[in-house]
Amino acid sequence: MKQILTVVKIGGNVIDDETSLASFLERFARLQSPKILVHGGGALATLMASRLNIPQQMINGRRVTDAATLEIVTMVYAGQINKNIIAGLQALQCNAIGLSGADGNLIKAHKRVHAEHDYGFAGDIDEVNGKLLDQLLEAGLTPVIAPITHDNNGQLLNTNADTVAREIAQALSETYHVKLVYCFEKNGVLRKVVDESSCIASINKNSFQELQTNGVVNGGMLPKLENAFAALDKGVQAVVIGKWEYLEQLVHGQTGTTIIHD
Amino acid sequence: MKQILTVVKIGGNVIDDETSLASFLERFARLQSPKILVHGGGALATLMASRLNIPQQMINGRRVTDAATLEIVTMVYAGQINKNIIAGLQALQCNAIGLSGADGNLIKAHKRVHAEHDYGFAGDIDEVNGKLLDQLLEAGLTPVIAPITHDNNGQLLNTNADTVAREIAQALSETYHVKLVYCFEKNGVLRKVVDESSCIASINKNSFQELQTNGVVNGGMLPKLENAFAALDKGVQAVVIGKWEYLEQLVHGQTGTTIIHD
Repeated sequence: MKQILTVVKIGGNVIDDETSLASFLERFARLQSPKILVHGGGALATLMASRLNIPQQMINGRRVTDAATLEIVTMVYAGQINKNIIAGLQALQCNAIGLSGADGNLIKAHKRVHAEHDYGFAGDIDEVNGKLLDQLLEAGLTPVIAPITHDNNGQLLNTNADTVAREIAQALSETYHVKLVYCFEKNGVLRKVVDESSCIASINKNSFQELQTNGVVNGGMLPKLENAFAALDKGVQAVVIGKWEYLEQLVHGQTGTTIIHD
Repeated sequence: MKQILTVVKIGGNVIDDETSLASFLERFARLQSPKILVHGGGALATLMASRLNIPQQMINGRRVTDAATLEIVTMVYAGQINKNIIAGLQALQCNAIGLSGADGNLIKAHKRVHAEHDYGFAGDIDEVNGKLLDQLLEAGLTPVIAPITHDNNGQLLNTNADTVAREIAQALSETYHVKLVYCFEKNGVLRKVVDESSCIASINKNSFQELQTNGVVNGGMLPKLENAFAALDKGVQAVVIGKWEYLEQLVHGQTGTTIIHD
């Protein structure tokens, strides 16, 4: 039987707030190994861009990564956020190791080609080096991954952290029984955006269609769910979306929204 | 017989200039494995501090690391510089992996205690996790280390890169025959600071005393040489100081200043 591996993605308010982050890291450190953490950090990057007077352009909620912005996200994601998470986990006796997609050729990507928009140095993933992650996990380490990838020609690329989490979960699903958990500040996918008690317990492909048609699911939740279904299609065993404060329950499918294959 | 391991430290002008860095990385990638790179990046940190209007205070050439400065050096060293070096080496088919001292508990340090001055979040090294480096080297990876350490209680610390290189060389000298190469922009230790042809071929403890008394060696060169002698005392096989453009010759002791034990 395959060993269980938990891949957790955090973003949003969890990372921006020191107290929330510390509280999340305690929960993450307590999870049974092996495990992997993928983090975003968009709000801190936006803050740094503003401090450096680098204007930010967004297209459909995705950042346009010009050269100055690439420098910022590289510093903020792979430096500031990643290393603070690592130090925090080490203090909790979780032997974490921080990686960008360039490290050990972990995530090879290419600059996004888009018919209408130029997203700049935005990377779409070609390949994940699952063998490296497996070696690190076997050595008792907990990889913590910043969403910066590379094209193997010396170019760093800014990559969506939800997608990084999905691709990593997929790459390891041959070796492990992978659970993918998307953590954010809401209880899960909500039927009414303002009502935390309206969390939908499970979504399959049919109900996903319906939720889209009814306009219940839209905005940033749409790519998250698309990522979830893609992961299930590629061998990931379970995908759950929910509130970071209930991490352990999410891992066991006891709360949040579980995404179901059929 | 022990395998040869080369530990190279770069700093100064090499990192600040894109063309020089690219040229150095080509030379480094060509070196026979196993090898480790340690980098500084003070000038880029100073530049970022100025862009963010964070005043910098230096005491005897060492940066005082207040909280805002720690954030900057973490971003710049472990993010911007480290990940650009990694992407550059990957493009040269050198399978590099970037690490801070917090990653995998690589370098445990404590906040510097100093009778006269408060250096802020400056770290003095307690212990290097040589086993982790050995595992990464065995897996065919080339560690690239940013001079940020941690205290195992969640605090990141800014640490002198020359010292990081020395401590790493020492920690691996039980397993490997370690050559430690300090690269910078001069030909080596110069008898006359303005005359590149006045490079001193070798220095032992006696001549070091003499060079200090005569005032030939002073300023930033003093701690570099003290580090070199300390490394030899702790089992490092060879220490060479010289110009990054001659990296291969430095490794073979054909140029630069060789530090000799007796």
